[in-house]
Amino acid sequence: MVVDSSFADLDVAIVADGPFGGTCLNFGCIPSKMLGYTADVARTVGGAAQYGVEASLRGMRWRQVRDRVFSRLDAESAEGREGREKSDFITVYDGHARFTGPKRLQVEQGETSVAIEAEQIVLATGARPTVPPQVADSGLPFETSDTIMRIDQPPRRLAVLGGGYIAVELAEVFAAAGSEIVIVEQAEELLGTQDESVSEAFTELAGRRFELQLGRELTRLEGSAGELRLVLDDGTVVEADMLLVAVGRTPNSDGLDLAKSGIETFDDGRVVVDDYQRTEADGVFALGDICSPYQLKHVANREAEVVAHNLRHPDELRATSHDVVPAAVFSNPQIAFVGATEQDCRDAGRDYAVGTTRYADVAYGWALEDTDGFCKILADRDTGLLLGAHLMGSQALTLIQPLVLAMTLGIDAKTLAQQPYWIHPALSEVISNALRAL
Amino acid sequence: MVVDSSFADLDVAIVADGPFGGTCLNFGCIPSKMLGYTADVARTVGGAAQYGVEASLRGMRWRQVRDRVFSRLDAESAEGREGREKSDFITVYDGHARFTGPKRLQVEQGETSVAIEAEQIVLATGARPTVPPQVADSGLPFETSDTIMRIDQPPRRLAVLGGGYIAVELAEVFAAAGSEIVIVEQAEELLGTQDESVSEAFTELAGRRFELQLGRELTRLEGSAGELRLVLDDGTVVEADMLLVAVGRTPNSDGLDLAKSGIETFDDGRVVVDDYQRTEADGVFALGDICSPYQLKHVANREAEVVAHNLRHPDELRATSHDVVPAAVFSNPQIAFVGATEQDCRDAGRDYAVGTTRYADVAYGWALEDTDGFCKILADRDTGLLLGAHLMGSQALTLIQPLVLAMTLGIDAKTLAQQPYWIHPALSEVISNALRAL
Repeated sequence: MVVDSSFADLDVAIVADGPFGGTCLNFGCIPSKMLGYTADVARTVGGAAQYGVEASLRGMRWRQVRDRVFSRLDAESAEGREGREKSDFITVYDGHARFTGPKRLQVEQGETSVAIEAEQIVLATGARPTVPPQVADSGLPFETSDTIMRIDQPPRRLAVLGGGYIAVELAEVFAAAGSEIVIVEQAEELLGTQDESVSEAFTELAGRRFELQLGRELTRLEGSAGELRLVLDDGTVVEADMLLVAVGRTPNSDGLDLAKSGIETFDDGRVVVDDYQRTEADGVFALGDICSPYQLKHVANREAEVVAHNLRHPDELRATSHDVVPAAVFSNPQIAFVGATEQDCRDAGRDYAVGTTRYADVAYGWALEDTDGFCKILADRDTGLLLGAHLMGSQALTLIQPLVLAMTLGIDAKTLAQQPYWIHPALSEVISNALRAL
Repeated sequence: MVVDSSFADLDVAIVADGPFGGTCLNFGCIPSKMLGYTADVARTVGGAAQYGVEASLRGMRWRQVRDRVFSRLDAESAEGREGREKSDFITVYDGHARFTGPKRLQVEQGETSVAIEAEQIVLATGARPTVPPQVADSGLPFETSDTIMRIDQPPRRLAVLGGGYIAVELAEVFAAAGSEIVIVEQAEELLGTQDESVSEAFTELAGRRFELQLGRELTRLEGSAGELRLVLDDGTVVEADMLLVAVGRTPNSDGLDLAKSGIETFDDGRVVVDDYQRTEADGVFALGDICSPYQLKHVANREAEVVAHNLRHPDELRATSHDVVPAAVFSNPQIAFVGATEQDCRDAGRDYAVGTTRYADVAYGWALEDTDGFCKILADRDTGLLLGAHLMGSQALTLIQPLVLAMTLGIDAKTLAQQPYWIHPALSEVISNALRAL
């Protein structure tokens, strides 16, 4: 959120052609995690017997789950809009804006068209799911992360095109809701941008529960609504009653006539900004998925704070740091990571040490009966500074936070292992033990 | 563990009158957390409906649970013993040792009695459950944390004497195993040494599920085995088929004839040690519950490292730091804390700021449907340094770790809030938001 009451001396226009709160609140981070946690609950019930707890899982009431999530989120979104509309210094325009020249926009708002001139403009239009032509041109129905979380009924068999974090998070949700899952991914592994230990282990685990078609591309989509056939490049035909397309996201920089105001974009569609979030056009800032090297809400939030400051303090600009950016996959098991992967370190010819601890080697891992999880930490042999950290397992995204802190503030592995106490027998012992293993 | 292969040039005797691994592995931290997580699973099943997951809980198979836990832990303990017995520089004595003079011990080992002289002696005999005379003298059966986790069948109705962390952790386990719980505690609140916000909130929540007899003392224990009657000081009679005594722990410093070697103890039974873990007697060190101000395994481990070093390096002694010691209660909800409570700060007349964030105010808290949890952080108004942190809710004991790190290394609240990224929408946002609220 850029605009707060400190902007009350200005005349502010917000132009939105979608719900307030954007992807995160409406189609992204938050609903997927609310559904993801619900999937966790279902899996805990389903796996209770291994702990000696007698339980039976009768299933997920999908509509009830969906409505719990979206009744809350839609209300949050409406409340966000209402707060803006009630403000006496903000005008909300529902519609799509295009540049007509420097600092000039034209907003199509239903039947009417409004011209807006502004001294300062902030682009925060985000990104949208990328749909490859084989799907888009087929004329057949498909879902994306924008739509699938709001469907009325889980498919019997869901084909997921893509093997990145959105693909696996949503696959977990629908698996827990009762769908059979088949994932089609062109790489040989799921989550291929992760550290090699993580992608390998995750792919192996996912293969036990999902049908994986790896190293395959979609040649064409055939069939009819509810009876889709995905023809792959090796001739394999995957049948499914629903298709989720999750192959990446495209910045919403097109359709804005950015060139008319002199704003530049990279080949991948991202708007070019400097460290202060300024575009090439005077007075125009950008933040979030339209420009950021990281399509992550915590990065967009940080960028928004920088923009909010820089709009008001042109003489003391702040820069956004993208140096140590952690991220997580709310999959099963969870994954969290920060910094370099081992393949990065090797490719860069670094002299690095690796410390790995398995969840099975710490007491709380015994409690969880976790035989798959691990924490892997990479550090520079000379300085002891952390280069990267990769966790797969319960609470990974909470566990990684001390490592993010250490990397950001330059705390070396030895100090981190030896000075603070690490609570026994908490799961954080996977961190302290991995640090010691270095 | 003090003795490793670096001691191989010495002749080492280990005298144990209980299983290897001590309280932590056999009667304490680890089995209670393994049982506690099992209780979490049962509660997740029981509460699945609120998420829209249809499940039925048929109960916990107590013997199966118990046997899963203790077959693993008993094997670990036996393996620990075996490793020692196989060592060619360690002799294991099964029995109870007493001092007969400086650096002289007599070990009663069944029928035989062995005299041992040693240049260096380490006391690590731990502590045991305190049993008040009203119980001990009654002649009626009772359980402690040493025994209750290994019983054959959960009681129908369990009376718990005491309201500290052991009492509440074990109450949760047996509640999940199907027992009715009644807690008798002399203070007006459970977990009375916690920050006031935590003990108040926790007591309120526990009162919804357990019968609480607060502000009451046990006058006498009557009845017969399986039909116990606890008569309280206000005349209330609590009936139960089993009694768990969890009113505190007594250091095992008695029965060792410590005076014969000149070792001093405090009034509470703890052996007096200096910062280097040295007792008053030349060559005698102590560590863990027999001497420590903190009866916590992570503190004992740190003390053990210090002792291991100091035994071999008398000229460059290391000190144990007890400055920033976190701890946790594996209750429902979980509790974790470090540093000062708010009442400590107020009583000390400190100029402090409080930042609190509820789980319900962050996105992952919505996913959990958590309406009770919170994170409360206390900081010095002048320096911004953290004074204390208190969490109640899911993953509390993992979440607190970055705050422990910050307190230990002197990182102020502003740096901690603003420099590292905090993953969205992870539960760690309760920390970053509480820091911002400061």
